Amino acid sequence: MSQEHSVSLTFDPIAEARRQWVAHDWPDAADGMAAVTSVMRAAQIFLARVDELLKPFDLTFARFEALTLLSFASNGSLPLGKMGRRLQVHPTTVTNAIDRLEAQELVRRVPHPTDRRTVLAEITPRGRHVAAKAADRLNRDLFTATGFDPAELHELFALLHKLRASSGDFEA
Amino acid sequence: MSQEHSVSLTFDPIAEARRQWVAHDWPDAADGMAAVTSVMRAAQIFLARVDELLKPFDLTFARFEALTLLSFASNGSLPLGKMGRRLQVHPTTVTNAIDRLEAQELVRRVPHPTDRRTVLAEITPRGRHVAAKAADRLNRDLFTATGFDPAELHELFALLHKLRASSGDFEA
Repeated sequence: MSQEHSVSLTFDPIAEARRQWVAHDWPDAADGMAAVTSVMRAAQIFLARVDELLKPFDLTFARFEALTLLSFASNGSLPLGKMGRRLQVHPTTVTNAIDRLEAQELVRRVPHPTDRRTVLAEITPRGRHVAAKAADRLNRDLFTATGFDPAELHELFALLHKLRASSGDFEA
Repeated sequence: MSQEHSVSLTFDPIAEARRQWVAHDWPDAADGMAAVTSVMRAAQIFLARVDELLKPFDLTFARFEALTLLSFASNGSLPLGKMGRRLQVHPTTVTNAIDRLEAQELVRRVPHPTDRRTVLAEITPRGRHVAAKAADRLNRDLFTATGFDPAELHELFALLHKLRASSGDFEA
């Protein structure tokens, strides 16, 4: 099966699905189906690359994002609740990421100086080092190597910005 | 925490990350980071909508895609290996999807008429009914309601087509 899996298609399977959508009396929905499916497939492609690039650092993209967010924060610390909102993930996801980052000694939990109910995550010196190395790797091998030119990157960002705004990710 | 989670941000967190990237001496990678992260977030938004819309049919997007692919096939059947290539997923993912669809009586496994080594998945009449109902739901509530106009859908498809082609999804 793995050999079969590696055989490249000689046609775009999403374009083919679009053609089927039109042929099956759903022409109005065909372009939307193709765009939505393309976004999902593109995300899989990017995530596979990110996972591969972050593997040497024993990081997932979620943990990389959490670590980087802390590295940007004043004092290198943030309340967990705030991290979840900024990273747009469920509180449980943040808790799990911080648990793992703490076990890796890249982050530690510290009490909030004035609010007893709030727990802060604080990046460690080792965490800063790993965050910088991991960012360098992603920047060099993915973010500056997407295959898109600057105008295309802006266009892609602008289109998806509109979607994210209308989906309530933030107040536009 | 769930209350905190529902609080809307007053700024675009990816635009803010982009600003931080520029401020932290990674200006060349900032647009790529913002585009890649936007694609991943957009996929999450779409997948959450799809999951919600398919829940009444007890289908995931992967199972919906497998079922729809079979509904388009001549005789309503395809070899499992071919399905994996068309859906661009690992053979194990196809096997799991077909296992579940078979348990739901939407698909059945049948022997290949001429090749003993090949197993076919065949859509059942009930599978065709569910596939059509689920497609109607997605078409009505997502694919024709993405918030993008036709020109934007084409632009998005074209940009991601380029990425998918250069990533080896198919021969361009």
